[in-house]
Amino acid sequence: MKDPELRNMAGLVEIKGLKGAFDINSLQKDYKTLAERETSRNKIAADLETAVRQCGLQNGMTVSFHHHFRGGDYIVNMVMDKLAEMGFKDLVLAASSLTDCHEALIRHIKNGVIRHIETSGLRGKLADEISRGLMDVPVVFRSHGGRAYAIQTGALPIDVAFLGAPSCDPFGNANGYSRDNDDGVKCGSMGYAKCDAQYAKKTIIITNNIVHFPNVPFGIPESNVDCVVKVDAIGDPAGIMKGATRFTTNPKELLMAEAAADVIEASGRLVDGFSFQTGTGGASLAVSRFLREKMIARGITASFALGGITGSIVDLHEEGLIKKLLDVQGFDLKAADSLKNNRFHHQISAEYYASPKGDGAAVNQLDVVVLSALEVDTAFNVNVLTGSDGLIRGAIGGHQDTAYGASVSIVTCPLTRGRIPCIVDRVGCIVTPGKTVDVIVTEQGVAVNPARSDLLERFAAARIPLHPIEELRAKVEAIVGKPDPIRYTDKVVGVVTYRDGSIIDLIHQVA
Amino acid sequence: MKDPELRNMAGLVEIKGLKGAFDINSLQKDYKTLAERETSRNKIAADLETAVRQCGLQNGMTVSFHHHFRGGDYIVNMVMDKLAEMGFKDLVLAASSLTDCHEALIRHIKNGVIRHIETSGLRGKLADEISRGLMDVPVVFRSHGGRAYAIQTGALPIDVAFLGAPSCDPFGNANGYSRDNDDGVKCGSMGYAKCDAQYAKKTIIITNNIVHFPNVPFGIPESNVDCVVKVDAIGDPAGIMKGATRFTTNPKELLMAEAAADVIEASGRLVDGFSFQTGTGGASLAVSRFLREKMIARGITASFALGGITGSIVDLHEEGLIKKLLDVQGFDLKAADSLKNNRFHHQISAEYYASPKGDGAAVNQLDVVVLSALEVDTAFNVNVLTGSDGLIRGAIGGHQDTAYGASVSIVTCPLTRGRIPCIVDRVGCIVTPGKTVDVIVTEQGVAVNPARSDLLERFAAARIPLHPIEELRAKVEAIVGKPDPIRYTDKVVGVVTYRDGSIIDLIHQVA
Repeated sequence: MKDPELRNMAGLVEIKGLKGAFDINSLQKDYKTLAERETSRNKIAADLETAVRQCGLQNGMTVSFHHHFRGGDYIVNMVMDKLAEMGFKDLVLAASSLTDCHEALIRHIKNGVIRHIETSGLRGKLADEISRGLMDVPVVFRSHGGRAYAIQTGALPIDVAFLGAPSCDPFGNANGYSRDNDDGVKCGSMGYAKCDAQYAKKTIIITNNIVHFPNVPFGIPESNVDCVVKVDAIGDPAGIMKGATRFTTNPKELLMAEAAADVIEASGRLVDGFSFQTGTGGASLAVSRFLREKMIARGITASFALGGITGSIVDLHEEGLIKKLLDVQGFDLKAADSLKNNRFHHQISAEYYASPKGDGAAVNQLDVVVLSALEVDTAFNVNVLTGSDGLIRGAIGGHQDTAYGASVSIVTCPLTRGRIPCIVDRVGCIVTPGKTVDVIVTEQGVAVNPARSDLLERFAAARIPLHPIEELRAKVEAIVGKPDPIRYTDKVVGVVTYRDGSIIDLIHQVA
Repeated sequence: MKDPELRNMAGLVEIKGLKGAFDINSLQKDYKTLAERETSRNKIAADLETAVRQCGLQNGMTVSFHHHFRGGDYIVNMVMDKLAEMGFKDLVLAASSLTDCHEALIRHIKNGVIRHIETSGLRGKLADEISRGLMDVPVVFRSHGGRAYAIQTGALPIDVAFLGAPSCDPFGNANGYSRDNDDGVKCGSMGYAKCDAQYAKKTIIITNNIVHFPNVPFGIPESNVDCVVKVDAIGDPAGIMKGATRFTTNPKELLMAEAAADVIEASGRLVDGFSFQTGTGGASLAVSRFLREKMIARGITASFALGGITGSIVDLHEEGLIKKLLDVQGFDLKAADSLKNNRFHHQISAEYYASPKGDGAAVNQLDVVVLSALEVDTAFNVNVLTGSDGLIRGAIGGHQDTAYGASVSIVTCPLTRGRIPCIVDRVGCIVTPGKTVDVIVTEQGVAVNPARSDLLERFAAARIPLHPIEELRAKVEAIVGKPDPIRYTDKVVGVVTYRDGSIIDLIHQVA
């Protein structure tokens, strides 16, 4: 049969999407066994350089990374060193977040290897240098949901994703732990990486641990993977994860945690089947301890807990107090082990977690979220990105996403940290708009967003110690006075985006 | 801040993908509790008609369905009746497969509601009528992998997917069973539906069982779902699934099954860590029984079993003889229950199962597949689509995909069925090209594709009863003679595609 012959046949012309006649010569069947295929016909590249060439990276393209290895990450530096060595220039580095351990990037920025950075946050020396004007193009900060949305919608197209994974089979099925080895490096959920792998034009998995096919259940499926690179080490286990996040012993934080739990109870949300998320930060992490007591006393269970999962949340799950865990990111070894072993501890992608794309995200089903803050202002705006000195030292994370999605968003924030005021007239950088922040819990009382008259009434009835935010602000000023304003230049070093990619604030160079 | 003001700032003009300034008025936070959101702010449409309108269906568009409910499916008929009632015309019906219970479509074809059909197979009266020239435009037949490929690559764009699901939460997380109810309708894996949900412009879940959020682990995530419709019944449990697929007691099939197991052993593939798939059909299903004995005798385990999963495969998994199950479709209740309860029984999508897209599919890691056939010819071509009368009565399924992917593909086929010859000079319809078929197992001996000299040598050494395929063909002719040729018209009623969308054969109207 010839193609034109087929095409001319009655009816066929009406069918779109048909190709020409089958070509038997195009078929070359592989007689190898699975064991042979694993070693010869696989996606394993000889080394990182080979993988980079196979993926067709060019100057000016966008490379992406995840931050599931946290402070122990070796991947970002390893890859950028290699790309610099290979002579690449003008790259866009799009990481789900960057941290202290990425100081080495300063050199690559100075040398023109990296032209632009997109991230959820920055810390350490890299953050300091960028705050002081290191880059010509401002860093774009996005929330975890905002980043997923930008990737999905094409606003942030990824050319090559470089994704570290604690286990991967020869065909690219990758996971945040190893099924056959409890002692290896592990990070638990790979929620942010899932999104990159799905949407990137090319995806390279970098692993120290190649396992047999099929590496299921997987975090990233082989169909999203182009190359696998084996390296000696992907990260420092001690920096990636600690045994279990320990509860704070800071009395101020414990006070706030207890108050936050009281607020949740008084909000009317603490009913059977409720849902919640607790962010990082001593006070918000400690809330689960106080919630536990209240749940047992009421004889209720939560339908799910969301977000970054900690060992203390796992404890509640294993105790039967939380039915399901939706995990985009594990915060400790206990969380990673639970993902591996508990059937209703479910790995979700950044998109599923928090994307503002119309078709739904888990943050929209939250009853309560408890978050932290570097600063809060009298309009309830929250800053989690810049310090009192104007330097970048934080990350948006899921702050914007959960504050919007949860029907009660609670921000714990002490009045002061040392001599630094934390309740201010106007935050140095607006990350989460006050319109989505419902309650501020301090160690000296609670302020409720005036828009939430429903909560005000409930809290008053429950005798929660309420104060107008301005009163708390005045108290702060009485303690530490009004600090000198930070001096900035006109140069913009950071663009803070809201979830939909709009610009909510700008970060200027510190003079 | 105004948009132009932002845009003009140093560096910002260089950043692609940024939106304008944040608009606080665009924010409308929802104060409802999860329980309230489940009932009010959800994706549940009032009824099917409302959902269809919300999804913007237009004349000429493509609607898709899955066949996980098999002979008990109510969804296809229910939806097409509604679309006919609503006055739609010229629709393309793209189902993962169609079966006996879809006879009602004949009316909608005659009335012009359906202009064109894409499917893996057709059976019953609908198949008969189409074989006899019912449709102006030929039906396009695709394998499961070929369909996934066509959907992925845009050759088969789906406008609205109508996907039945045994459980779904109010936001669209759907599954093939219910977590909280063991007695409801269930179908197990929703592998074909996953692919539709991911790529369709709009997806409607139709369910009889709305459960609480989050319905995890899910087959289809809410992010792939636009509407949920609640109906009284989605299918007939008796038609969807039986308790466990029973082993054949047909002596001819048992002979072939045992011979196929001997062939697998002789092929050298029966080693620790091997992988396999057994298709439907009495003989190929029964192979697992004989494999089990051989595996125990050798003290080996399989790394994974793939494809449509049956109770007998689950037995081997639960016995520890198969480490992992990759399940695109459950064949019986036992398989569905296992997917729910066994941690290494893993639900995979059609794409992951079998798509020929370059980045990998599980079929490519198969050591052995055992398949069935309606007819085989002396060039090893296989027909699983048309009967000896020329009428359509089958489905491609994963036949092409696994025959190509497995390093040893075994087709069991009796010499004759009643007076019908099953080894022929030229199959009535080429579905799977002989180049990818390695071994034919009949009840009277084994034929090996001459291209597989490696297997010929191994089988001879293992004293497998070998015959040239021509000899088997001659034996058949000696038994039943040469049947009269089927009389066809020039009209093309079916286009059989190979996995990549090329046309491998045409099915003509039976005169």
